[in-house]
Amino acid sequence: MSDIEIAQAAQCKPIGEIGAELGIPEEFLVPYGRNKAKVDLNFYKAIQDRPQGKLILVTATTPTAAGEGKTTVTIGLTQALVKKGKKAMLCLREPSLGPCFGVKGGAAGGGYSQVLPMEEINLHFTGDIHAVGVAHNLLAAMIDNHIHQGNQLNIDPRTVTWRRVVDMNDRALRNVVIGLGGKADGVPRETGFDITVASEVMAILCLAESLSDLKDRLGRIVVARTYDGKPVTAAQLKANGAMAALLKEAIRPNLVQTIEHVPAFVHGGPFANIAHGTNSVVATKMALKLRDYVVVEAGFASDLGAEKFMDIVSPYGGFHPDAVVVVTTVRALKLHGGVPKDRLSEENLEALRAGIPNLEAHVENMRQFGVPVVVALNRFVADTDDEIQLVREAVLSKGARMALAEVWAKGGDGGLELAQMVLEALDEGANYHKLYDWDLPLKDKISTIATKVYGADGVDFSPAASKALAELEEMGYGKLPVCMAKTQMSLSDQPELKGRPRGFRLNVREVRLSAGAGFVVAICGSIMTMPGLPKSPAAERIDIDDQGRITGLF
Amino acid sequence: MSDIEIAQAAQCKPIGEIGAELGIPEEFLVPYGRNKAKVDLNFYKAIQDRPQGKLILVTATTPTAAGEGKTTVTIGLTQALVKKGKKAMLCLREPSLGPCFGVKGGAAGGGYSQVLPMEEINLHFTGDIHAVGVAHNLLAAMIDNHIHQGNQLNIDPRTVTWRRVVDMNDRALRNVVIGLGGKADGVPRETGFDITVASEVMAILCLAESLSDLKDRLGRIVVARTYDGKPVTAAQLKANGAMAALLKEAIRPNLVQTIEHVPAFVHGGPFANIAHGTNSVVATKMALKLRDYVVVEAGFASDLGAEKFMDIVSPYGGFHPDAVVVVTTVRALKLHGGVPKDRLSEENLEALRAGIPNLEAHVENMRQFGVPVVVALNRFVADTDDEIQLVREAVLSKGARMALAEVWAKGGDGGLELAQMVLEALDEGANYHKLYDWDLPLKDKISTIATKVYGADGVDFSPAASKALAELEEMGYGKLPVCMAKTQMSLSDQPELKGRPRGFRLNVREVRLSAGAGFVVAICGSIMTMPGLPKSPAAERIDIDDQGRITGLF
Repeated sequence: MSDIEIAQAAQCKPIGEIGAELGIPEEFLVPYGRNKAKVDLNFYKAIQDRPQGKLILVTATTPTAAGEGKTTVTIGLTQALVKKGKKAMLCLREPSLGPCFGVKGGAAGGGYSQVLPMEEINLHFTGDIHAVGVAHNLLAAMIDNHIHQGNQLNIDPRTVTWRRVVDMNDRALRNVVIGLGGKADGVPRETGFDITVASEVMAILCLAESLSDLKDRLGRIVVARTYDGKPVTAAQLKANGAMAALLKEAIRPNLVQTIEHVPAFVHGGPFANIAHGTNSVVATKMALKLRDYVVVEAGFASDLGAEKFMDIVSPYGGFHPDAVVVVTTVRALKLHGGVPKDRLSEENLEALRAGIPNLEAHVENMRQFGVPVVVALNRFVADTDDEIQLVREAVLSKGARMALAEVWAKGGDGGLELAQMVLEALDEGANYHKLYDWDLPLKDKISTIATKVYGADGVDFSPAASKALAELEEMGYGKLPVCMAKTQMSLSDQPELKGRPRGFRLNVREVRLSAGAGFVVAICGSIMTMPGLPKSPAAERIDIDDQGRITGLF
Repeated sequence: MSDIEIAQAAQCKPIGEIGAELGIPEEFLVPYGRNKAKVDLNFYKAIQDRPQGKLILVTATTPTAAGEGKTTVTIGLTQALVKKGKKAMLCLREPSLGPCFGVKGGAAGGGYSQVLPMEEINLHFTGDIHAVGVAHNLLAAMIDNHIHQGNQLNIDPRTVTWRRVVDMNDRALRNVVIGLGGKADGVPRETGFDITVASEVMAILCLAESLSDLKDRLGRIVVARTYDGKPVTAAQLKANGAMAALLKEAIRPNLVQTIEHVPAFVHGGPFANIAHGTNSVVATKMALKLRDYVVVEAGFASDLGAEKFMDIVSPYGGFHPDAVVVVTTVRALKLHGGVPKDRLSEENLEALRAGIPNLEAHVENMRQFGVPVVVALNRFVADTDDEIQLVREAVLSKGARMALAEVWAKGGDGGLELAQMVLEALDEGANYHKLYDWDLPLKDKISTIATKVYGADGVDFSPAASKALAELEEMGYGKLPVCMAKTQMSLSDQPELKGRPRGFRLNVREVRLSAGAGFVVAICGSIMTMPGLPKSPAAERIDIDDQGRITGLF
């Protein structure tokens, strides 16, 4: 059975029941259809003095075409914790709609470790991403309108960095010229569109703690410079009140359930390269007050989403991660060891041995933050005992734990060993700390991440990047944490370098400010913020019958 | 008190109660928050054999800056029918979000004749317009992707008529060049963005009777021509299945309530110039099975929304309108009679007499369709008895009825006289018929509307329009009804001609095909499909506090 067939065969509990199990009073639970609900932020105020649950972060080895199943393991692990009698829930990012129509398909786990209702989570869900898109585009319209209507703020149109967004893979919108047609139709200038989840508004939504914090952060967004070089903010354009009003519902965490009826917040979905790559702080904060164990997934591997969770999200959210799970597969490690994609089903201990350093790097990365690490080997039928043993030895030699996960096929039952290991790791205790002091100069913060996490020998800054960093320090943005934007395909900034690259220097090409989100983005290489559709898009195969049954979404 | 203050002070009933009063079983009612729900289309199948209620269409005189309060009267009239012990409900279009941030403010009625929850209906609502936008933009992305990936269908990029949409007043997007940046970033071409509600997808959503009809209509959309002049459809691009999947929830009517707890479907919102300007056919069809009296509002005046309701919507939906209400005000008629906007509060019988022919034209227009007409004079405090008497005499001399409406201030109680008149008109009986036979040649259909409804002496077609009409007949689109796109500010195609213009000829400049919606659009003058923001947009004054209370939305 395919993921969507398994999902369609499953029975959801009414979402009110899931809310009741979490002890959320009906007055705070706002239904969206029968199987989704939003939780009023006032509920957090009512429970904020409760003790905090344990926070388990799920990351993975460097992504490959083989897939690691990180979301599936996150869901399966939580289901297993519940099977072991623990009060547990999970937090995931909500999937972007656009990519469903490209190559990727859905993003709600798989097999017997899915969140439901699968189609609705993948299509529109509760409208959060649409709200982010409109809030973003309102600010864009107000910028161009301001310039058109006399430009009182003296905005230099050539410096506008605030692009527009759509939730669609649409390469033709990457670079556009707008404002054509004559005097009544705006001021012509070059700009472009990003996919909605790449918006700084999404990053802000996922870091804001309340509506007023959201409004303040939106107001701090820098959209352009004046002709004399001063930053122009959304607050100066008086856009942030209306933007926050548009996000009134979007800031409320979305409650759904897994296929085994385990509660899940699926809320917010910022990019893990130009943004921080984890679900909303409000969802995680609330979850930590509701359950003893909260499993949270971060985007991409330890060098991206997980590093940012430790260095950006946790300080802003007041989190102290208690354990980290690194998901990997024998197949992915063999790919890192040089095996071509069509020969991954054959045992190949040599290639596996050559790929294992990638796993070791991610384990070491996470241990640097003072938290115990458990490796989850997401098992495939072709994996041999010798291959599994090889991975286990490597993990143990790094002082970490390893467990097999078979959660796609078996649900929570396939994650019991993993859950046991995680509980043991939690008993060990953690001593979470950031990797770097936010007070360090921006270049030092970047260098710390590059050398300690990526394994680089050092960092080379382009002249433009050096100049921009100096300007940011001067303007008072120097104490912000750094959000690294680099390829997810390698621990380095060169996608073709697999395994554990050594002897390279990181190249910082460009620097951007996300003053509202509260970080400085250092861009290494080219980062795609607007995907394209493939020659035969998944959209061509998606269909719906008269009863509303969707096919072709996977 | 302002409209938003009245709305925020009001108490909604739980939407489940409203649904129960309508006899909608819980299984067919899908909640969206506490005060909104969608109704499953399968419910219609269960009730389709019930007798049909009476259908009352609300239109107005030619819009002026003074405002007629058409939505407010629609709501108030329905509330009055319920006060008189009748089983009644109403159907409205859902407001576009973008214009809320411009000049216009909300669009959910006013005073004690509003639909609730007012802020939510104005902002995002149940996400229908967002779904329309994504479905529209998916097709746009698939067109440009097809051209980029080899152009197997031989699409001539210069002929692509399918633009992109955003739900925002953003003049800088009216005319753009996309596909810049080089070989990997698409094929450069000129295009532009419309506001989402101007999309043909919205028109289709509002005319489709089921998911399969929706999918078929989406497939018939013509997006471009091949290099040898043949139409290229969404079905050829295999886009319509995915588009319909995106509209799975959007096609379900949205149930809300008025401030007096009268049930209302607020569903779909196509433009009333380039499209047909009334709420979805599925909502009206369902309402006619649920209540004895259904009040439906059409966009703009009798020459636009109401004519289209009679000639396009009713034939497609199988409706037989039973009565028409024409809303007007003394102030608006005085404006038509030449009084400047700042002197509308002074009695001016001469100007009123000069403006009344506008009202007479709209009454005559509606009587041509074989339905009894009631004029609702939406009363303002400054209106004098003599002024009201003058209007009444004019109406009676046309064989119609007139009642005062004071529904903004008094709710349903202010509409009792109007409700009584409507009931009497219904007793009189109707003999609804279309104005023209769909089998007539396209030019004849246009001429019929121009002469019989607008009062034109005849029609002049531009050479381009004549050529396009001939081509459409040749391609087999000649039997479609005609959707006229002209200014709403005058009965003619010249916005400055107030009152009841005579001695003019209509100029048809351009013709477009909406093959999916099922009509040919004849464009007279310039029709704005992407509004701009004013110098000081309403967005600057919209705000939200930490409790989620929105201010500045009106």
